Amino acid sequence: MNDEGLKVVALGGGHGLYASLSALRRVTSRLTAVVTVADDGGSSGRLRRELGVLPPGDLRMALAALCDDDEWGHTWSEVVQHRFRSDGDLHGHTVGNLLIVALWERLGDTVAGLDWLGRLLGAHGRVLPMSSVPLDIAAEVELDGRVSTVRGQVACALTPGRVRAVSLLPADPPACPEAVEAVLDADWVVFGPGSWFTSVLPHLMVPELAEALLATRARRLVALNLAPQPGETDGFSPQKHLEVLGQHASSLAIDVVVADTGVTHDRDALAKAAADLGGRLVLAPVADEDGSPRHDAQRLASVLDEIFREKR
Amino acid sequence: MNDEGLKVVALGGGHGLYASLSALRRVTSRLTAVVTVADDGGSSGRLRRELGVLPPGDLRMALAALCDDDEWGHTWSEVVQHRFRSDGDLHGHTVGNLLIVALWERLGDTVAGLDWLGRLLGAHGRVLPMSSVPLDIAAEVELDGRVSTVRGQVACALTPGRVRAVSLLPADPPACPEAVEAVLDADWVVFGPGSWFTSVLPHLMVPELAEALLATRARRLVALNLAPQPGETDGFSPQKHLEVLGQHASSLAIDVVVADTGVTHDRDALAKAAADLGGRLVLAPVADEDGSPRHDAQRLASVLDEIFREKR
Repeated sequence: MNDEGLKVVALGGGHGLYASLSALRRVTSRLTAVVTVADDGGSSGRLRRELGVLPPGDLRMALAALCDDDEWGHTWSEVVQHRFRSDGDLHGHTVGNLLIVALWERLGDTVAGLDWLGRLLGAHGRVLPMSSVPLDIAAEVELDGRVSTVRGQVACALTPGRVRAVSLLPADPPACPEAVEAVLDADWVVFGPGSWFTSVLPHLMVPELAEALLATRARRLVALNLAPQPGETDGFSPQKHLEVLGQHASSLAIDVVVADTGVTHDRDALAKAAADLGGRLVLAPVADEDGSPRHDAQRLASVLDEIFREKR
Repeated sequence: MNDEGLKVVALGGGHGLYASLSALRRVTSRLTAVVTVADDGGSSGRLRRELGVLPPGDLRMALAALCDDDEWGHTWSEVVQHRFRSDGDLHGHTVGNLLIVALWERLGDTVAGLDWLGRLLGAHGRVLPMSSVPLDIAAEVELDGRVSTVRGQVACALTPGRVRAVSLLPADPPACPEAVEAVLDADWVVFGPGSWFTSVLPHLMVPELAEALLATRARRLVALNLAPQPGETDGFSPQKHLEVLGQHASSLAIDVVVADTGVTHDRDALAKAAADLGGRLVLAPVADEDGSPRHDAQRLASVLDEIFREKR
């Protein structure tokens, strides 16, 4: 199933990106993750406030998803993902976050630091930030007919209601040049799964990255979430997710939308929403067999591999 | 100059051990450091208090001294030695300390954790703690004719006066079994240089380790400090250092004492002090040529190599 030659860029952040990378690493060895850098919670939030760095958490998690499959890769991945528990200052910090920040401070180069952690993990692919500066997300949130603006990823996730739109602060952030290159050079670009407004759509708000996503000759695939996310996409149907994507990038053409067979009873509506973006719908069993709202890496990999092969 | 076959164990802690390891790595590739674990200051002190672990700092520094000589070894050594500077919680923590603690927490095995960091650094040798539990040092300190007892390595170093004797808390700590084995299996055991009471002598107060140091058929070498250490050995002559060593291990026979040519004007008195321990004195230029009180790794290596070759 492995295809040395296919260049795939995965866009996202957090657990959603972890899921897509866990699948995509089975499909290609030429994989690049382009990761949101707007997290302001937990260990990442503390590090960006204390040391003025990019929030490292989503970058770390993406690298861990790509770790080598031997004892070395698994051991270092576990250590990198290890979180301190105590009554003191270190409580909640994840070791890999601290290691990434140390690499950045020593090397003075964001991408080089991530590449070094990738080498430690024997990573099957490259992990890049979407922007070279830390970002904040501002969201318009609607609850009971009233709209308020909240700032920060944590606030967006915790504020009850539906997000109507998001924007980035600063509004015109510089893209990571290597990420732009990877998008332009890709065969496939994969959006999602993941927190729709705070992990998947932000890439379209980084101007140079958005341009590259429009200009690339890569095919574009959307992997839909298995369920709405409380506080962010409460009550959103799968087709509503696609609609929102279209609203944030009106001239972006999508080639394929992948959704789990269980996400909708109205296949026609979802197929129409995909067609509105220029794409076809692929419904397949990609969720965990145990019924939890998680993607199964092997199932998702099989579906993606088949789609990638068809289109060559 | 490299001798694959010679098994050398270096005893000490802190910057002194870093100096002996920097020299010894040029002399043999079968090198084991046995490191004091009584530090209660700085990053190490905070970690042992917050997480109940062995103080990792001296272990980390020893591993860094042994890092591989290529880009990989140097880069990871720099990262491992990197210290955070901030106005926040992480200020003063060294990344390698956090990494060692994470390895311990994940693997549940002190020696395995250190071996894994050694593998990361491509370490030319092994680093072991002298005891498997964190220790404290208690010292009798004399100032202006009055004797007081202070507890903790930091207090010992900061309290003005001369240390008269030190003891460990707990008084009968378990040795690290692998350290005992290494001593019994060694061709040479090297004491010092380093903080005499708090880094070099403590090994003799861990009962199983002291027994091994007496029982081993290895030859024993003492590398003397280049200058007395304020707060610990104020005004101590080199021969006084040897006397104190003899007081802490009366039946320990020393084969060779190495001292810099500049440490004494009274060679006969120093030679006699060495002879009192059963050893011969080797005076040689082993200090940094710039006159700073640091050992020059290459110079010390040349002298040690010559001594080791003579005795084979």
